[in-house]
Amino acid sequence: MSSAPLDELIASLGDQMVVTDPDILAGYRHDRANDPDAGTPMALIRPVTTADVQVVVRWCAAHGIPVITRGAGTSLSGGATAVDGAVMLSTEKMRNLTIDTATRTAVSQPGLLNAEVKAAAAAHGLWYPPDPSSFEICSIGGNVATNAGGLCCVKYGVTTDYVLGLEVVLADGRAIRIGGKQLKDSAGLSLTKLFVGSEGLLGIVTEVTLRLLPPQASACTVVGTFASVHHASEAVLAITAKIRPAMLEFMDSVSINAVEDMLKMGLDREAGALLVAQSDAPGPAGIAEVELIEKAFSGCGATEVFATSDPAEGEAFTAARRAAIPAVERLGSLLLEDVGVPLPALPELIDGVEAIAAQNKVMISVIAHAGDGNTHPLIVFDPADADESARAQTAFGQVMDLAIGLGGTITGEHGVGRLKKGWLPDQLGPDVMELTARIKAALDPEGLLNPGVLL
Amino acid sequence: MSSAPLDELIASLGDQMVVTDPDILAGYRHDRANDPDAGTPMALIRPVTTADVQVVVRWCAAHGIPVITRGAGTSLSGGATAVDGAVMLSTEKMRNLTIDTATRTAVSQPGLLNAEVKAAAAAHGLWYPPDPSSFEICSIGGNVATNAGGLCCVKYGVTTDYVLGLEVVLADGRAIRIGGKQLKDSAGLSLTKLFVGSEGLLGIVTEVTLRLLPPQASACTVVGTFASVHHASEAVLAITAKIRPAMLEFMDSVSINAVEDMLKMGLDREAGALLVAQSDAPGPAGIAEVELIEKAFSGCGATEVFATSDPAEGEAFTAARRAAIPAVERLGSLLLEDVGVPLPALPELIDGVEAIAAQNKVMISVIAHAGDGNTHPLIVFDPADADESARAQTAFGQVMDLAIGLGGTITGEHGVGRLKKGWLPDQLGPDVMELTARIKAALDPEGLLNPGVLL
Ligand SMILES: Cc1cc2nc3c(=O)[nH]c(=O)nc-3n(C[C@H](O)[C@H](O)[C@H](O)COP(=O)(O)OP(=O)(O)OC[C@H]3O[C@@H](n4cnc5c(N)ncnc54)[C@H](O)[C@@H]3O)c2cc1C
Ligand SMILES: Cc1cc2nc3c(=O)[nH]c(=O)nc-3n(C[C@H](O)[C@H](O)[C@H](O)COP(=O)(O)OP(=O)(O)OC[C@H]3O[C@@H](n4cnc5c(N)ncnc54)[C@H](O)[C@@H]3O)c2cc1C
Repeated sequence: MSSAPLDELIASLGDQMVVTDPDILAGYRHDRANDPDAGTPMALIRPVTTADVQVVVRWCAAHGIPVITRGAGTSLSGGATAVDGAVMLSTEKMRNLTIDTATRTAVSQPGLLNAEVKAAAAAHGLWYPPDPSSFEICSIGGNVATNAGGLCCVKYGVTTDYVLGLEVVLADGRAIRIGGKQLKDSAGLSLTKLFVGSEGLLGIVTEVTLRLLPPQASACTVVGTFASVHHASEAVLAITAKIRPAMLEFMDSVSINAVEDMLKMGLDREAGALLVAQSDAPGPAGIAEVELIEKAFSGCGATEVFATSDPAEGEAFTAARRAAIPAVERLGSLLLEDVGVPLPALPELIDGVEAIAAQNKVMISVIAHAGDGNTHPLIVFDPADADESARAQTAFGQVMDLAIGLGGTITGEHGVGRLKKGWLPDQLGPDVMELTARIKAALDPEGLLNPGVLL
Repeated sequence: MSSAPLDELIASLGDQMVVTDPDILAGYRHDRANDPDAGTPMALIRPVTTADVQVVVRWCAAHGIPVITRGAGTSLSGGATAVDGAVMLSTEKMRNLTIDTATRTAVSQPGLLNAEVKAAAAAHGLWYPPDPSSFEICSIGGNVATNAGGLCCVKYGVTTDYVLGLEVVLADGRAIRIGGKQLKDSAGLSLTKLFVGSEGLLGIVTEVTLRLLPPQASACTVVGTFASVHHASEAVLAITAKIRPAMLEFMDSVSINAVEDMLKMGLDREAGALLVAQSDAPGPAGIAEVELIEKAFSGCGATEVFATSDPAEGEAFTAARRAAIPAVERLGSLLLEDVGVPLPALPELIDGVEAIAAQNKVMISVIAHAGDGNTHPLIVFDPADADESARAQTAFGQVMDLAIGLGGTITGEHGVGRLKKGWLPDQLGPDVMELTARIKAALDPEGLLNPGVLL
């Protein structure tokens, strides 16, 4: 890559925005999936405005240079991994946000963290529900690009349910606005929804209009300890058959112990599995839901059931669940699954993962947004051990095959990225893959946006 | 069109499915928009299975014959209007439905009425929320193709929020399955969402997997009578600023009187406007919401406020609101608007529509799903009166211009169809129109699916 064209870009954007220092670039090669095959970008660009993004994309289009959009780099599927010679476009400096209480919407640039959007909404007495466990470290633009889920989405839905409008810079540098502050809009194709979850392949999200809700009613938390993961997954079904809890999270014994090592909060180290459920139904309805959850836990053989209406106590257990990925990460490198199944297949999925772990002699810790059938089997391995690494890789594929076989999905919320794209055709089939490629080609004919992701 | 190729189709499908009788065809030329420019189809085809649909589409593709998909023909935007020489593909015989209580989903062929899906779910103690006013006469496939809204969607969302999976026959006759019974799925582009609301332009929906909810808690209804539409629209904002009601519907004096003429239920004929609100929050939370609604009504000058927890009484008022379109239709032919605005602009929209009516000397009755800013100004005219028809047409365009000017949409739920496509570029702009055309071309390169709609 000659440096002449980059000078051109620096001339347009100023040298503050364009970074070529190899030490800084090195910090932008990987996302949290730590793909060993990550390339080295030619430059990191940190635009501030939509117009800056347009300049970058037009320049890349003119010179045939790929653009990888990066939010906060917490992708667990390798979606924000560098490619040799590409431009890394980081949204970290795009941080404008306004809350409109009259329409109950937030208009945000992509670089704010999810937690910052939540806090700004809360300061106006409003609530932005989507809450990935990574909410304190992931960007709202990344959430839109991956259609992020979270803990409360079993009742309150995922990111797409809150995106009313977008500004997107297309592959040729044009900026479009779609949707807006109106709550309902059937004018034209559902383009807003198409861009949500498109993993940086169809355009760069430069502004998001988000629907906000009145504040959530305070929730009661019910924690159940089980001797086996199987009992716990039966309890999940007993609950979801009757009500929509505001949260229904699952941890197995490896993750319980890893979290206990890290947080020392007194979790039962002997437990085979833990469920953390919440009900935010107000008044008697909430009491009835809590009773139903308690009964479901006991009925499925819980060894201990603990209920609290104290928000701080409830938050402690939620935080424990959120800490599970970083805690298990301390046991070794992780291959992170995100498989989902229709709820009745949940016990079968969890049993099947146990069998895959045994068969490949690797440790797999399962945590899950259990209430919506979305599990995260975490495959722990030592990257210095070539044999174990290979067995981990085998298990990684087998877990996805298992989910596909159960009528489920290889990714419930993290996206396909680079790591799971080998399995996508097995789930979607050749016709849907071909349709996907046709849409990609229609929107990005030169294939410059996030090449190597998904397709 | 020579009849030779049709014989080919009859040979494949049998003559039961292929109708060419001109008297029957005549009944399939129009939808509820009664477009005077409707063409005459070459044949009506009523497939039973997905394979039948594939045969039809392949045959049409081979011979370059356009296909108009028709559900129940209740489109108010001319989306299911015949084109000369086209095949009308009616889904009316595609009526299989299964309810899966374990996953809380319904898997439905497109031809069932919305009310039939609701009833089947209810028979299993489950709830399919989307409730267009036309729910007893519109098909679930049509709901998906238009992303239909309704009365409870102010709290419970629109059709797209309930579509988990689809089977779609593409323009070349291939059938694809996307999504499924899993509640969360980030594998690949959001194709399911793209097909929802695509008005028959991208493919033919042959099966829908719908998310069902636990039954709705019984609702309290609050009815407010106002001297002016302006007071009523202020009351809407006072409510939506604080809570998410389960319903918040609006009728003006023309529609109140038209409904009273038809149903004779004792509505106040002197009222300038009526609001029908519901809260389904359980227990004390519901009582608080009802009080808040009552206060908002009184605070905005309601002349009468009536609250009831009797479901039958509540349903009578809901039925009155649902009857508004057919009731006003008895006053003359209708040009039916579906404009939506961000909520704070609602009073301005309603005032602006009044001004447009006065200026063009036409009667415009406004009814609205007010809680989400989606209004239906109904322009009443006598088609035999050329001058009045012309003025009605002028007003029709001016109302859409007004909504666009207020940052809103020309259609909140009915779709663009044929009637509103002239205004779509003004709302979306040339870049989004061009993007729309690119996606259409990628999926239907020959332009055989519903030509003349939207683009
Ligand atoms: C400990 C931990 C827990 C997690 N828990 C959850 C969870 O509960 N639920 C969940 O859904 N995810 C979870 N994640 C995954 C991750 O946080 C999400 O995928 C998040 O949405 C990524 O946001 P980001 O800003 O870090 O995006 P990045 O990692 O920077 O990018 C992710 C993808 O989005 C694209 N992208 C980013 N910004 C834009 C933009 N503005 N325009 C276009 N494309 C863009 C990138 O190209 C890439 O493909 C977790 C991650 C960690 C590390
Ligand atoms: C009195 C009255 C009240 C109404 N109230 C509401 C309301 O509150 N909310 C609302 O949203 N709408 C309302 N409508 C409009 C209408 O009922 C909806 O648009 C409905 O979704 C159309 O369904 P249908 O089966 O009649 O579709 P049709 O009218 O047959 O077709 C509508 C569009 O969908 C396409 N289509 C139909 N089936 C399929 C399929 N299987 N695959 C692909 N494309 C298909 C058609 O090509 C056409 O473009 C109302 C209509 C009336 C007459």
